[in-house]
Amino acid sequence: MRQPLPSDAISGLTVSRRRFLSRMAFGSAGLWVASAFPVRSAFGQSEVEGDFIVRQENPLNGEPALRALIKEFVTPTPLFYIRNHGNVPKIDPESFKLKIEGMVEQPGEFSLGELKERFPKAEGMATMTCAGNRRQEHSAFQKVGGVQWDAGAIGNATWGGVRLKDVIEYCKPKEGAAHLWFDGLDDVEVGGKTINFGGSIPLEKGMQDHDDALTSLIAWEMNGEVLTPEHGYPLRTVIPGYIGARSVKWLGRIVVSDRPSPNHYVATAYKVVTEDTPLALQEVAPIYRYPLNVAACDYSGGEDRDEITVRGYALPSGRVDTRIKAVEISTNGGRRWSRAKLIDEQRPYTWTRWEATVPVRGRTEQVMVRSIDTAGEVTPDRVDWNAHGYLYNGQHSLPIKSRD
Amino acid sequence: MRQPLPSDAISGLTVSRRRFLSRMAFGSAGLWVASAFPVRSAFGQSEVEGDFIVRQENPLNGEPALRALIKEFVTPTPLFYIRNHGNVPKIDPESFKLKIEGMVEQPGEFSLGELKERFPKAEGMATMTCAGNRRQEHSAFQKVGGVQWDAGAIGNATWGGVRLKDVIEYCKPKEGAAHLWFDGLDDVEVGGKTINFGGSIPLEKGMQDHDDALTSLIAWEMNGEVLTPEHGYPLRTVIPGYIGARSVKWLGRIVVSDRPSPNHYVATAYKVVTEDTPLALQEVAPIYRYPLNVAACDYSGGEDRDEITVRGYALPSGRVDTRIKAVEISTNGGRRWSRAKLIDEQRPYTWTRWEATVPVRGRTEQVMVRSIDTAGEVTPDRVDWNAHGYLYNGQHSLPIKSRD
Repeated sequence: MRQPLPSDAISGLTVSRRRFLSRMAFGSAGLWVASAFPVRSAFGQSEVEGDFIVRQENPLNGEPALRALIKEFVTPTPLFYIRNHGNVPKIDPESFKLKIEGMVEQPGEFSLGELKERFPKAEGMATMTCAGNRRQEHSAFQKVGGVQWDAGAIGNATWGGVRLKDVIEYCKPKEGAAHLWFDGLDDVEVGGKTINFGGSIPLEKGMQDHDDALTSLIAWEMNGEVLTPEHGYPLRTVIPGYIGARSVKWLGRIVVSDRPSPNHYVATAYKVVTEDTPLALQEVAPIYRYPLNVAACDYSGGEDRDEITVRGYALPSGRVDTRIKAVEISTNGGRRWSRAKLIDEQRPYTWTRWEATVPVRGRTEQVMVRSIDTAGEVTPDRVDWNAHGYLYNGQHSLPIKSRD
Repeated sequence: MRQPLPSDAISGLTVSRRRFLSRMAFGSAGLWVASAFPVRSAFGQSEVEGDFIVRQENPLNGEPALRALIKEFVTPTPLFYIRNHGNVPKIDPESFKLKIEGMVEQPGEFSLGELKERFPKAEGMATMTCAGNRRQEHSAFQKVGGVQWDAGAIGNATWGGVRLKDVIEYCKPKEGAAHLWFDGLDDVEVGGKTINFGGSIPLEKGMQDHDDALTSLIAWEMNGEVLTPEHGYPLRTVIPGYIGARSVKWLGRIVVSDRPSPNHYVATAYKVVTEDTPLALQEVAPIYRYPLNVAACDYSGGEDRDEITVRGYALPSGRVDTRIKAVEISTNGGRRWSRAKLIDEQRPYTWTRWEATVPVRGRTEQVMVRSIDTAGEVTPDRVDWNAHGYLYNGQHSLPIKSRD
């Protein structure tokens, strides 16, 4: 099913980020661990004021305004999108233990201290993106449920912790082990029951090791600071190249298994289906790797000049060796395309921002952008609609203000 | 990855069907049960002579010439494509028993006689198609392994047997049962080991019942006759709407399970991947439902007239209520399209043949055809290449002989 190009972005509720955070930290939602909360961004408070859009208050879901998102290569934590399905649990770091169970010779329980002592620290950069990023563009064709994300459900961060691989190897997976289940400690209401959020990845993905790229982590740091509560304190997985849903926050348990997790967010949600029926959901696999994506986020100029400078991001499809090959921009509805300049040095599993200065006329209403990566993925003109609005990665449009 | 339109069809080895069958029945391949073999087609021997293309002799794989395929709404059995992965086993119908095992309260063993006595007979029509149909068009872009099918790995037949549903219900699936595994009695060499061919479907698919459509069967009849050895004698599954690989021939065992079969042809083969790596194969689901497809198969006229009449088939995507909405044909490379006439009354899970009379000029080198179905599926201009060449369903081309 093909769909027309999206109409104007659907606007969300914009609030002052500082005011919002204050309300959350000291107001009715008393679960926040205030001491661990990064009230100040390393990149300066001024950049984050009013730039965070709360899409849903309970559970908390939000994304940065695109003009703010694109300012930094490394996304300041207070601007980093938040995707919750339930509460933000309050976890006591002293009594906390991570359990490793299932098909292992040596099941384990690790306190935070034990994890840090027993395994070498690993750090690196990876861009994370929600499978529902750009859901608004699916909804513009036919409304789908879920958080109505613009193109801001993406962020680039550095992550620190221990290699998932090291911990799993320590516990000695048994013959036949093929998948890792991640269980969060949050409470999520699904169909009248309370469950926890869960993720799952093939064991082989968790065991991959690369010299020059971030490996899958059990992480406690984000951008050089302790994870904030809303980003998973005290522990989360970080699975580079996979949709954000596999980077499970408030990680309490890993189960080694011969099959994917039966958790709702693996077996039922986060699947691309055109019909929302039990059989259709059984016929498809969970989404793991994210596809190539591109967005135009902001522009300057145009008021008294005949050109504008447009900036945005491009994220290569989630393979360790894939890079952005080109980003192209059009001011005349796709009849002519010109090449954008890539701003950031390309790294594995990491976006690059791009910039293009293009001529505009009074009647130019939007710019369009498309991309291709070295794995041969191309952002399509349009993306087939799917029932839960995942993986929109078609050509992206940015409205340009008329000079009249 | 997008690919150019395919070049001319890659030709296979055409032999006289009668000569070929004789050789197989009485020659070195002594496994055939000659008495059950349909030496004569119900539709007349003349139609099948020289019309069967053997793509591979051992294991035996072949498809009809497209001009022959399109002559009948119900494909004569001797013209029906044959897709084998190993030998054609010789099975003694007297001692044969079908086993039902796994997550059932009441495991069972049924002789052919017991199946026929205990369960009501069910009959109906369904088109079957190989997931590799039109693989040549993937290979035209970048060669893929496997049988190099033209658009003839498809056929329409009537099937008779018992409802899979009735047999499984009789054995009482346990709580948590979610998949049915089908094991064939053939011997297939895979990676230095001998295994059997296996299939798998979600239990819910096997349990679906429809008043007006064929349900999934354990079948012993095809086109009103006993199954021939190469089509699965004495028993096969027939799973309407799913790729042919789930309709397992020489069915010896059904296992009721909480997960898909670990058989090579479910866990590894019959998956759409761009990279042929163990991880990429783990990240995707087995192919179950087939997509919309269309082909132009034959034409008449054109030598001394300014028009030709083209015929072909269109198969709606494999949902019980989906029908072909339109077939369109172009003689000028897709600039203008005209509507074809659907020949056969549309039925669930069944192709319809179509016909179109269109003007041609001396320089017309090919006609192109495309289709749309009532589920909103559209045959794309091109299909993304995948490493094993499955599910090609782009616009199809038929070369037209020059009048010069």
